[in-house]
Amino acid sequence: MCGIAGVWNVEKSYNVLHDLLLGLQHRGQESVGIVLEDFKMIKNKGLVSQVLSESNFLPGNSGIGHVRYSTYGSNTEIQPLIGITSKGKFAIAHNGNIPDAESRINSLVEKGSVFNSTLDTEIFLHYISLAPYSDPILSIQWAFSRISSAYSVVILGKDKLIAARDRFGFRPLFYGKYKNGYVIASEDSVLYSIGANKIVEVLPGEIVIFSDSGIEKVKYANTDVKFCSFEYIYFSRPDSNFLYGNVHRARYRMGEILFEESSMRGDIVIPILDSGFSGALGFSAASKIPIELGLMRNRYLGRSFIMPENREEIIKRKLVPIPEVIKDKEVIIIDDSIVRGTTMKQIVKMLKENGARKVKVGIHSPPVIGPCPYGIDTSRKNELIANQKSIDEILSEINADELHYLSVEGLKKAIGGDNLCLGCLNLNYPV
Amino acid sequence: MCGIAGVWNVEKSYNVLHDLLLGLQHRGQESVGIVLEDFKMIKNKGLVSQVLSESNFLPGNSGIGHVRYSTYGSNTEIQPLIGITSKGKFAIAHNGNIPDAESRINSLVEKGSVFNSTLDTEIFLHYISLAPYSDPILSIQWAFSRISSAYSVVILGKDKLIAARDRFGFRPLFYGKYKNGYVIASEDSVLYSIGANKIVEVLPGEIVIFSDSGIEKVKYANTDVKFCSFEYIYFSRPDSNFLYGNVHRARYRMGEILFEESSMRGDIVIPILDSGFSGALGFSAASKIPIELGLMRNRYLGRSFIMPENREEIIKRKLVPIPEVIKDKEVIIIDDSIVRGTTMKQIVKMLKENGARKVKVGIHSPPVIGPCPYGIDTSRKNELIANQKSIDEILSEINADELHYLSVEGLKKAIGGDNLCLGCLNLNYPV
Amino acid sequence: MCGIAGVWNVEKSYNVLHDLLLGLQHRGQESVGIVLEDFKMIKNKGLVSQVLSESNFLPGNSGIGHVRYSTYGSNTEIQPLIGITSKGKFAIAHNGNIPDAESRINSLVEKGSVFNSTLDTEIFLHYISLAPYSDPILSIQWAFSRISSAYSVVILGKDKLIAARDRFGFRPLFYGKYKNGYVIASEDSVLYSIGANKIVEVLPGEIVIFSDSGIEKVKYANTDVKFCSFEYIYFSRPDSNFLYGNVHRARYRMGEILFEESSMRGDIVIPILDSGFSGALGFSAASKIPIELGLMRNRYLGRSFIMPENREEIIKRKLVPIPEVIKDKEVIIIDDSIVRGTTMKQIVKMLKENGARKVKVGIHSPPVIGPCPYGIDTSRKNELIANQKSIDEILSEINADELHYLSVEGLKKAIGGDNLCLGCLNLNYPV
Amino acid sequence: MCGIAGVWNVEKSYNVLHDLLLGLQHRGQESVGIVLEDFKMIKNKGLVSQVLSESNFLPGNSGIGHVRYSTYGSNTEIQPLIGITSKGKFAIAHNGNIPDAESRINSLVEKGSVFNSTLDTEIFLHYISLAPYSDPILSIQWAFSRISSAYSVVILGKDKLIAARDRFGFRPLFYGKYKNGYVIASEDSVLYSIGANKIVEVLPGEIVIFSDSGIEKVKYANTDVKFCSFEYIYFSRPDSNFLYGNVHRARYRMGEILFEESSMRGDIVIPILDSGFSGALGFSAASKIPIELGLMRNRYLGRSFIMPENREEIIKRKLVPIPEVIKDKEVIIIDDSIVRGTTMKQIVKMLKENGARKVKVGIHSPPVIGPCPYGIDTSRKNELIANQKSIDEILSEINADELHYLSVEGLKKAIGGDNLCLGCLNLNYPV
Repeated sequence: MCGIAGVWNVEKSYNVLHDLLLGLQHRGQESVGIVLEDFKMIKNKGLVSQVLSESNFLPGNSGIGHVRYSTYGSNTEIQPLIGITSKGKFAIAHNGNIPDAESRINSLVEKGSVFNSTLDTEIFLHYISLAPYSDPILSIQWAFSRISSAYSVVILGKDKLIAARDRFGFRPLFYGKYKNGYVIASEDSVLYSIGANKIVEVLPGEIVIFSDSGIEKVKYANTDVKFCSFEYIYFSRPDSNFLYGNVHRARYRMGEILFEESSMRGDIVIPILDSGFSGALGFSAASKIPIELGLMRNRYLGRSFIMPENREEIIKRKLVPIPEVIKDKEVIIIDDSIVRGTTMKQIVKMLKENGARKVKVGIHSPPVIGPCPYGIDTSRKNELIANQKSIDEILSEINADELHYLSVEGLKKAIGGDNLCLGCLNLNYPV
Repeated sequence: MCGIAGVWNVEKSYNVLHDLLLGLQHRGQESVGIVLEDFKMIKNKGLVSQVLSESNFLPGNSGIGHVRYSTYGSNTEIQPLIGITSKGKFAIAHNGNIPDAESRINSLVEKGSVFNSTLDTEIFLHYISLAPYSDPILSIQWAFSRISSAYSVVILGKDKLIAARDRFGFRPLFYGKYKNGYVIASEDSVLYSIGANKIVEVLPGEIVIFSDSGIEKVKYANTDVKFCSFEYIYFSRPDSNFLYGNVHRARYRMGEILFEESSMRGDIVIPILDSGFSGALGFSAASKIPIELGLMRNRYLGRSFIMPENREEIIKRKLVPIPEVIKDKEVIIIDDSIVRGTTMKQIVKMLKENGARKVKVGIHSPPVIGPCPYGIDTSRKNELIANQKSIDEILSEINADELHYLSVEGLKKAIGGDNLCLGCLNLNYPV
Repeated sequence: MCGIAGVWNVEKSYNVLHDLLLGLQHRGQESVGIVLEDFKMIKNKGLVSQVLSESNFLPGNSGIGHVRYSTYGSNTEIQPLIGITSKGKFAIAHNGNIPDAESRINSLVEKGSVFNSTLDTEIFLHYISLAPYSDPILSIQWAFSRISSAYSVVILGKDKLIAARDRFGFRPLFYGKYKNGYVIASEDSVLYSIGANKIVEVLPGEIVIFSDSGIEKVKYANTDVKFCSFEYIYFSRPDSNFLYGNVHRARYRMGEILFEESSMRGDIVIPILDSGFSGALGFSAASKIPIELGLMRNRYLGRSFIMPENREEIIKRKLVPIPEVIKDKEVIIIDDSIVRGTTMKQIVKMLKENGARKVKVGIHSPPVIGPCPYGIDTSRKNELIANQKSIDEILSEINADELHYLSVEGLKKAIGGDNLCLGCLNLNYPV
Repeated sequence: MCGIAGVWNVEKSYNVLHDLLLGLQHRGQESVGIVLEDFKMIKNKGLVSQVLSESNFLPGNSGIGHVRYSTYGSNTEIQPLIGITSKGKFAIAHNGNIPDAESRINSLVEKGSVFNSTLDTEIFLHYISLAPYSDPILSIQWAFSRISSAYSVVILGKDKLIAARDRFGFRPLFYGKYKNGYVIASEDSVLYSIGANKIVEVLPGEIVIFSDSGIEKVKYANTDVKFCSFEYIYFSRPDSNFLYGNVHRARYRMGEILFEESSMRGDIVIPILDSGFSGALGFSAASKIPIELGLMRNRYLGRSFIMPENREEIIKRKLVPIPEVIKDKEVIIIDDSIVRGTTMKQIVKMLKENGARKVKVGIHSPPVIGPCPYGIDTSRKNELIANQKSIDEILSEINADELHYLSVEGLKKAIGGDNLCLGCLNLNYPV
């Protein structure tokens, strides 16, 4: 889970990258990095507002940037990476994952290459350097042709900027006109929000080259599109739009269809904020059951100095119950997914303690039953409750009165199309 | 608009004050100050997370703190204030306003007193020093007896902490048990959120004294309560509770009654987030018109580096429209109030540009027609649109299709009681 | 021990105050404060470079500043102080001491005044407010007439800046022309170093008023001058100049006369850097004994992370011995004074361990036998070795082979004049 | 011009590296970097006290560090460098220069290697990876055998730390026992100053390996030693010691011999502080002409906010003249070298303006007539005044009354040995 951004030929590109990455902060909150023209670099752990502070300003009209969900050891493990290759000097940032990265790195190092990091991203630089072409673009194509998994990348060279997506288009990438130049980001909403226009998707298998002579496009591969369904379920901002339209509306329809499939009834619908909000609106509209603010999200919790020690207390502070709303009500909770089940268990308990007569749970996506080899944090694999237990077992575990998931068919219908990667939901992996 | 907090006899009171003030941040975002035992002080412009950073930690088991909406010149103008008086050394923090402060200060200075600040709060210290008693508590009572406007205060002495409210109880103040000691805050929700219990209101005209011998209460005045109605309308957190119950529920009822009074009809209800959310839920429930996320709030805007120059663009980025939601719809917007009207005008325009067929506006409070002499920022007096124009003129100004305010009676009914200060809504001022 | 500075009518006075206080840093390294026009204030613990960072820049053409040797509790105890008095608003910074401050403060507070700090400096503000005149300058004169001890002060008013010295002129103060305005500082060298010219001493008992109508001078008292001899012995920078000429040259002559009085002989002269350097040069020149770098000063010690626990090790790291210089030599150490004797004891030991055959100690000032009531840190009173022990006892304590102090007569001869406060050296106190 | 340091098996090695690099700060003031065990890294532009602040603390018992004189672009160009090679992961820091680095880098990149930086240091990592051995130590030896110029390096591996010097021993390197482990630094004085003992030189052509099984030494090359004479003339701290003894004493003897060779006479000797101090002491002792503080060094200048625009004014503030010392005197200035001549020209002018009757200049090293290919900043090559002009021309340029350099023979005699690199002084380059 990462976000990438790029700026070509816009004054004070530092400020523009700051705003683009700020708008992508939900895709990664552990580390931030940028490389501006002449390969000036800033990267560090922390949030965009901390790493790209005004006092760190660097001049330059072009650059690329990256936000990352998790971070290893040191600054060398933060993207973008810089490399001097036989085809010139490049900086690269990458959203996705190369499943067999370790064996590819080992094989390169054994032949005498030196890796500066343990990031799969560095593989691209080595393949570009080793490619049997003198032309940089042909070398980049050759590098992409050797890797067929999930990646959206931005590459900054001496006189050009390159945006590209893998052949399946697992991860999103967009660009648009901005002032005299161009801006690039993982989500289109971020481009709109800074005032860009003529916003276009980088297509699966496509390389877009920005240079002083304008835009050039190269199609290096042709395959069926397999867009990650979790971008629609919970990664992306509600105001983003992908091949099948707006994300909020898709989640709203997931909520509507969840009601149609489940026919759950109750007195009020309570969204788990912020993730379950769109789905709860749809569920409420379809069911005519009023939506209520039974659990208020405490936006300050992350900065608290006196954290309770047990998980139960932490959830109580994160989602503050409003007893006057909950008391004596049959409550329907709507959320986008259940990961480990521990949070939902506490929420159910908290609602019952505050007087809810019944607590029913609606999840507007299907159970996650497999890992993601394409860039979503797979460390959680063994912790996925739906991977280990049946729905009845989960219901009993979280101690709710009812539990309903959306069906895979319902999900596809809500999103409105078929070219989706559903691997973690139905074990049908594209690669 | 300020928030105050206190801690008595709790380990690492710095951390506790940090969390209390963090929870009160919505009441003032310009400056923060704390004074801990032995009168160690930190105060500065900025947010709680900036001013009370971990690296600024100070030891001590008791202290008081303050967040403030606006700030003049320098650190001397940030609360709490410290003074060595003839009754001992005190630190004081104050939420409210003394309307005739300037003439009181002039009169004291003319007699040879030296003021360290231009804050009305410093008047309390001088009155305590000049009071014709040797006992500190009697001196504090005497000081309060000379000032009959709005103040909730916390005072830290060498061996005691004092919490007090003016005789009308304009501004809220609560305390509760926490670990081996006590915590005090402007809103009860903040005390709940850190895990305090036995939470009690400081009563109007009451002084509560915390010392090693426990709690002592003194009633220094008796009058009709006049609680600020705007605490219910928009100052306070939705999860706070005052004499007439929960704030969110009151706003929800304002929305319900707004529908009853106005009978506005449309396809969807769009809340102006976050302030209009509770009212919109009530309106939607009463009208059965589904609530929708037509305007998404951009939580990052405040930290953007590339701000547009005109106000219209700023609002576009703050409240991002989702066209798929709005298109071809008859839209009802719900917000808590209209101040200058310029924002609402832009919102109406933005919705129409994104395809709304009609835009109707519902405000879940009555028009503000007078200034507030009791501590709400009165600099805006001449800018209040309802002070200058009729409702028809406002409707034409904002270019909406309909505009409905809640009635004063409807407001009282929604809050559920009568002991309210409604001065700015009906020009009936208590003092 | 403090330093004060002022700027009148010079662009970016913040930068000028920064440079003046940086040049006065040796007079106080614990806290820094400035007040600029419109009473904008910055004060904090730390060095000038930390407190007055570029990012803290404040606009304004006039201001005053202060560096302080020691600091109590909180920011309220850092100078300058600000007060709104019956004669207007003033900021004040003060170098010196009011010996009976506590009883003066108590007496003012008992009459109902409120003190914001426990600093003797605040007394000036109260006296100005209470003065039986409406004119600010007359009120300031009246305040000064009530206090006859040591103070050099700078006072910033709304439209004027005032520099003044007590009637004895214990502490230095200078001003000069700079660009279109004026600059003020405790030492003239600091004014030279920023490029000021026409540098003039503020005379004892004189008030200098800087305003838009130029400079005005008022003589408010006439007495014999009693300039602090320790400004010549060790407070001031070697390049500063007072009524009897250059400081370095005076210390050089102290070294020459110390040789004449003591006739100490040895192979090499080793200065204790930096304080004993000037005196050692004079001693070497008079004695024809070559000066050598036997103890190198470690300028980084203050910032070390791994400090040794015992004092002996600390001194070893602060003054690094160079064995090739010391070995088999009869060594003469020159320093300006001995305070507690512990450092000198370690130095003697260290030199002997590194092979010195003999170690003789020359101090180019007389023994300090009394406290200073005029602003030099008197907390050390009981620790003064010369206050407790005879010279023979000190010699035995520090385990040197010889020990010689300069005589009081020798000191006067070296400085070149008689109007000196020598209270701590001969118990003859002027006030 | 750089400094390197290492720590093996000492608690809180971060703090130890901080202190070692602080003591080496004079060797490089532009950037700082460290790598601790598990390859945790901090590097940045700035001083040791800024980059290695307490808040940046990292745990770990071993690590290496580097301070650098100049810095290119970004953090990737700051040492140490990290690389994953076919022999394992290593961090490396390097003091010295590989003259043909560019062609070596090009040749490696052309074969498909990727360079992360443009530093010659990275060549070591690539040679280690490409070495035809599986053993890391043999691979390191092989890498060293391919590069025969100047380098002292520290290398941190997973379970060992390596310190090594090139075969000529151009640059110094020492290690010593410290607590339960070892410390390594470019100068022995730094090791003494933190309290290390049993301090030993890493020999030219030697690799010292620190691991859990203790110390192991390997001699990989045998050649004549060619130690950089400029370490004695001005790079190193006066308290450091190399193969021919103490640095200060060598400079002192340079001053003595300069007098013997030149027979310059005058009234006073004025050192250019700090660089000319040791030589001036020697000159004064040999000539019996007293040394005087005619030019005081302003230690705060670097932090000034109001810098004068012309060079002359800057020098005036950096070296403050004391007129009472200079007036009517025949002055001899002593410094270690003349680079461009502009500073010396201003000093002569300033002394004459302050009343010096004559100004004579003594330089305690020979004229620099050639560049240094072994790591001393060669960008200055064309600016070297002695490279362009005769001594008479320089004398006329700086407008002094006399000018004397030390002879190369005098320098060798002062240092006390013959195994020196004197390439820049006599164009006799060892490699």
